Formats: sequence, C-alpha cells, structure tokens
Amino acid sequence: MPRKNAFYAQSGGVTAVINASACGVLETARKHKDKIGKVYAGRNGIIGALTEDLIDTGKESAKAIAALRHTPAGAFGSCRFKLKGLEQSRAEYERLIEVFKAHNIGYFFYNGGGDSADTCLKVSQLSEKLGYPLQAIHVPKTVDNDLPITDTCPGFGSVAKYIAISTREASFDVASMCKTSTKVFVVEVMGRHAGWIAAAGGLASSKDCEIPIVILFPEVAFDKTKFLARVDTLVKKFGYCSVVVSEGVKGSDGNFLSDQGLRDAFGHAQLGGVAPVVANIIKEGLGLKYHWAVADYLQRAARHIASRTDVAQAYAMGKAAVEYALKGHNAVMPTVVRVSSKPYKWKVGMAQLAKVANVEKMMPKDFISPDGFGITDKCRVYLEPLISGEDYPPYKNGLPQYVRLKNAAVPKKLKPFQLQK
Amino acid sequence: MPRKNAFYAQSGGVTAVINASACGVLETARKHKDKIGKVYAGRNGIIGALTEDLIDTGKESAKAIAALRHTPAGAFGSCRFKLKGLEQSRAEYERLIEVFKAHNIGYFFYNGGGDSADTCLKVSQLSEKLGYPLQAIHVPKTVDNDLPITDTCPGFGSVAKYIAISTREASFDVASMCKTSTKVFVVEVMGRHAGWIAAAGGLASSKDCEIPIVILFPEVAFDKTKFLARVDTLVKKFGYCSVVVSEGVKGSDGNFLSDQGLRDAFGHAQLGGVAPVVANIIKEGLGLKYHWAVADYLQRAARHIASRTDVAQAYAMGKAAVEYALKGHNAVMPTVVRVSSKPYKWKVGMAQLAKVANVEKMMPKDFISPDGFGITDKCRVYLEPLISGEDYPPYKNGLPQYVRLKNAAVPKKLKPFQLQK
Repeated sequence: MPRKNAFYAQSGGVTAVINASACGVLETARKHKDKIGKVYAGRNGIIGALTEDLIDTGKESAKAIAALRHTPAGAFGSCRFKLKGLEQSRAEYERLIEVFKAHNIGYFFYNGGGDSADTCLKVSQLSEKLGYPLQAIHVPKTVDNDLPITDTCPGFGSVAKYIAISTREASFDVASMCKTSTKVFVVEVMGRHAGWIAAAGGLASSKDCEIPIVILFPEVAFDKTKFLARVDTLVKKFGYCSVVVSEGVKGSDGNFLSDQGLRDAFGHAQLGGVAPVVANIIKEGLGLKYHWAVADYLQRAARHIASRTDVAQAYAMGKAAVEYALKGHNAVMPTVVRVSSKPYKWKVGMAQLAKVANVEKMMPKDFISPDGFGITDKCRVYLEPLISGEDYPPYKNGLPQYVRLKNAAVPKKLKPFQLQK
Repeated sequence: MPRKNAFYAQSGGVTAVINASACGVLETARKHKDKIGKVYAGRNGIIGALTEDLIDTGKESAKAIAALRHTPAGAFGSCRFKLKGLEQSRAEYERLIEVFKAHNIGYFFYNGGGDSADTCLKVSQLSEKLGYPLQAIHVPKTVDNDLPITDTCPGFGSVAKYIAISTREASFDVASMCKTSTKVFVVEVMGRHAGWIAAAGGLASSKDCEIPIVILFPEVAFDKTKFLARVDTLVKKFGYCSVVVSEGVKGSDGNFLSDQGLRDAFGHAQLGGVAPVVANIIKEGLGLKYHWAVADYLQRAARHIASRTDVAQAYAMGKAAVEYALKGHNAVMPTVVRVSSKPYKWKVGMAQLAKVANVEKMMPKDFISPDGFGITDKCRVYLEPLISGEDYPPYKNGLPQYVRLKNAAVPKKLKPFQLQK
C-alpha cells in the first residue's frame, strides 16, 4: 500500500471530548508513518477541505496533540455546513476529490453526527465513481446520543455527567432553601429531538440519595395539568422538587413549549428558553417560588467534569478509525459495543455507514417511566456506566490548561472555490 | 468557664462551601468538650431557633461531619428570614434568648452574609441587656463577596472559579463554531448589587489563553451603543466573543435590564433573565448568531469544582469562630486577611461585628477597566488566588457523594412560638 496523506475534520456542534477523538486519530496515525504521511485537518470542518484551507497537524508537538485529550470544543474549528445529495451538491463533492488528489489524501476521517455520517458515506461513494481511491471513515460524535448501532456516542456521556451532577447540586441547594424561599428549580438541557440528555437528569437521584425530579422529555407531549399535579405532589412530600426540561419539549399542539410568542414592552418578538416558560407555569399554577437555569453551551463544553468512560471511548473511536483505514476498510464507522452493564464492559465494533446515515436513534419507550416524568431502571442501567469515572484536566492558577494548536496552514495548490449559500 | 451548649445556624442563600464552615465549627467544638457541650443546629436557620426546632449534631458520626467539607448547600437547612431591629422584632429576640436559656446555650454561631451579621450583632446586644450571657460569633458566608473588612467571603471563590472555568470552556466552544454558526455567547451570572462574580468571568482570559470577553457590571450603566460597538470590534477581530452579564445590570434609566415587560402571546407578564435580553440586543443590533446560558443555582452549588482556597478559608472561618468564642470574644467575626498576593498568603483575622453589619463592600472603581467592559490587572491580582486549587469531592458511580445528615430533633421544652409574617 503506497503511503498516502490523511484528512481529518470536525463537524457540527462540538463536545467536551471531540478533541479526544482527534487525539486518537493523530496519535495513531503518527505510529504508522510508513502508511500515513501527513495528517491534514480541515480548518472549520469540511469548509477547510472545500476551500483548500488545510492545517498541517505535523507542525504540532506530541505534547500539544496529547493535550487534545483533555481540551474541549473543536481544536481545528468545526462548521454547520451540510452537503446535500450527490446530484444537488455534485460540484462540492468533486471539489473535495480535487483537493484530496492535489494533496495526495487517501484517508478521509470525518468526526461528526448523523448528517456528517451521510456526507462521509457520499464521499466514499463518489470516490468510487470517480475512480479516486479514498477510504472514508466516520468517527462518531454527538451529545444527542442519537446515532444508531453504536451503544453510545462520544460527547454524550460527559454532558450526561454534567447534567446529573448539576441537577444533584442544585437540588441540594433548593432543598436547603425551600422552607422560606425557592421550592422548585428548573434546568433546561439540550436535546431537540431525543430526550437522552434530559434522562441523565434522572441520575441525580439514586438509591442512596433520593431527589424529587420531574423530567420533561421531547418524546412526551407536555400536559400542563398532569405536570402541575406531579410538581404539587412532590413539593408537598419533599418540600421542594427539581424539573429537568429538554429544550425540545412540545405541547399537545405540536409546537415547541419555548415558542410562546414572547414580546417585549415595544412589541418586539423575543426568543426565550423553555425553562422560564416552565417556571412561569409553576408560578401561575401553584404559586410556588422558583429559580431556573439554562445550561446551553456550559453543558457540552464542560470538559472539567468529563466522564472518564466518555473520554476513553472518544479516544478509542479515533484510534479505531485509523486502524480500520489501515486494514483497508471504507465507508465504516467504529462503534461502542456494550459487552455487559454490570460490571460495565465495552469493546470497539464496526458499523457500515450505509446503516448509520440518516437513522436517528430515539429513546426506547421503556426507558421513560409510565407517567412520562422519569426514567426507568432499564434506562438507569444503560446510563450509569456512561457517566462513570472522572478525567480531570491539568490546572494552572485555578484554571484548566486547555491547548490551542498552532494550526499552521498548508500551502494551497488549487484555484479558489466559491462556497454556495 | 462552665460548660455550655452551642447553637449554629445557616442563613440566607447557600453556597458550595457553607457546609465546610459548619464542618469547621463542629469539628473544632468536638475538640473542646470540656467547654462546649452539645452543638445544636437550627433547622432551616434562625427559624429553627425561634420555633425551638433544634438538631442535635452530636448524633452525627465523625465521618458524616467530615463529609460536610465536600458537600454543597446547607446541611441543616437555611432560610430567608430577616429579623428587624430590636424595637420591631423584640418578641423574636426575646424568644431566641428564651430558647437558648432552655437549652443552656452559651455560644451563638451564625453563618451568613450582611443581614445575618446584623442579626448576630443584635442578638449579642440583647443578651447583654437581658443579662443572659451569650457569645455571638458571626461566620462569614456569601457568594456576593460584599462583606467588609474580610479580604473575601467564603462561597465567592468557588462561584468565581466556576464562572471563570465555564466562560473559558464555552468560549472554546463558540470559537470553534463561529465560522458558520454562533458568534456570540452570553452567560448570565449572579450579583444583583456588586459585580464581583461577573468580574470572575474576566479570569477566563489570561496571558497564555486570550479570550475576547465583554463584561456587563451592575456598577456600570448599560450603554447599548457602546456595547454593540465593543462586541462588533471583538467579533471582527477574533471571529467571536463571550459576554458575561451580571443579573443586576441596569440601563441608564436605573431599571434592571432584565425587566423588559415581557408578555406572552396571551398578554401574560413573563419573567425572563437578562441573558436573553442581551442576546436579543446583539441579534437586532448586529445580526449575529448567538447562544445564551443562565447559570443560576448551578454556579453557587457547584461543589464539584470548588476552589481549594475557598474551601480552606470556609473551614478556617468556622474553626476560628469556635476558637474566638472559647477565648471569650463576643460580637465578632473571623476574617480572611491577605498577607500577600504573589505568592498568595493569608491568615485569619477578627472584625468587630459593629463594623461589619450593614456595610456593603462594592467593587473598587479601579477594578473595572476604563471602558467599563473588563477587569484591570489590579482586579486580576485580587481574584486569581481566590480560585486557586481544586478540591474534588469523592465520587461513586460517576456522581459526587454528598452527605445527608440524620438531623435528629432535640426534644422541645417550650411552648410553640408563632412566627410573624
């Protein structure tokens, strides 16, 4: 097998551990210099490939690459740029092949979620059609945990850990204030389509540390009467409760609960979150004092409290992607295979990209409790190992030492390419 | 000195380290059983004393007491219940003395902020007037960092660390997304009167890790034009920026910026935070894509990333309170005295409560940069040591193991007392 260069890019919303996957790709590639020459990263994801804006990762020290393992977000820049089908976006796909040819790239590692898996698959197909040999391997990543086949998606475990811990901590807070002050704490979490992250809020309560929690899943239509009754019951029993609400919760009319048509005093439309909406429902319906938080990026960037399991799996996915490429695989994605839950054992598997692209894994129905407001034991057994273990970054002067790479540009060889949109 | 019992209570908003102060009080008292008999805690703060709802901390194991050091929030319950002046609330003050007499309490340890310091002072004065010997010692606590004399207030350093880290992490996130997506990230932090916590957001940027941050302090009237110009400049230079906004920011009209008279589609008034308001101003003024977060209780409950310095000081304040009591002091508060900043050295001092009560320590003007959007080097020198060091709690199954006490009630000896309000 002649020595080829590799291309690596990060795609879509970043996570606390996507750089750990990058670290796995780069460290493993460096061990196989006989087969993989340079590893070029796309600056700002696939846009870097289209515009021939490549980063020479070879300019980074081994120490800097190792530090990616404990650095959140996308070290090379990510992007939200969806390539359409081969027919509509043929110019883009052909441009990719043109850039790969120009830089002798034979390996395409694409680190992203469902949309990216689809792009990766199309790239592999086009390379076959155009007769340019390219191995396209997808590296799974998404806090949404909605990729099929793989037991979990790198990025999710760390968000889940952050939400479970934060919900437990804030619940301790409200429990100590509830006698005279706040009785309900509402926290809004990510997850527009699937309630995986919201479910993680349920882990805050455990057998040895019971906490009254109401979860609002995007899978369950919001029922105001039932919700208020549940909150009322819990506050009467415990003196307080916490509500974990997914940003994607919809009413029975199918509209997002966050979309309340808010207007300011001047009549301007205002974009609010769903947490204040839920808090307001509680205030109006039960007259209880509340506090609310919106975790937003804090949750997916929280490398300081990443799950050790998640970090290890993110790294393993990157490493396996390179190993699969070296074994000649194409159009595949490494997966996490659960061997057992108690004790938790996992290994690396492989999925065909054709079976991954455009398939969304939703929460199984038996993961949500019959009343729609909590998680079942089955869900708990699934989630618990994913938040297991801590993996603290190094600190200096009280702050985590996250690495910033040099991101040196590779000299361009081609004419500029105009991006659509 | 005859052996007396002690009373300890937590007051006002809780913090990540108020239990560390409780730990300091209880462990130190247990070492002096010849002088301090039982330590009773007020269930839900001073309300526990007024209603004779006392907790016998002697029923807790040494292990449970030690675990308070790493447990956030108020283990005995706190309350928002302000005793007024001696004239208006005389019945309450006399009731306190009655309860203390009934339970042979000679030491009053009150763990709170400015209002509580005032209560503590009044209790000490009344005990003199009523001829009941009682030593009242205040244990400082407040995330707001606004108590005078003491260099800092336990609770603040940990919130500051959380905000500095979270701002750094979210900034890494937005930096990697900004090419095609989010360009401005807005995070709302606590601090209705003073901008200490907002200032901590400035620590996210350091010499070895520059991050474009705009801080909106409650001390600086919001100037929309200047603000938009600043954000615009930073986004043009860096591609993105982060905004740390204090909940207490006011417009030039003196009204809270968060108070936008929001109404939903049905005309109902809605309570929103200031983060979405600022985000909306950016969207309308600059057309930039944004994300926003509201940290709320997550910040002050975040024991998982508490400052080691803060934990040590919180414990030291509790310990010193008992030691001062044993030395015969009354109406005093232990303080943190800064000996030097580089290297950071501190010792425990003492303040007269009369000089603490009703005095609010604001941010010095020279801590805020001339443009009003950042912190000065002087502020940085002050803040940096306070977030220094980590003090991780123990974990089990991926979650921090915070202790819950038995909180066994002490048998009542008096008739019930009706709380006012």
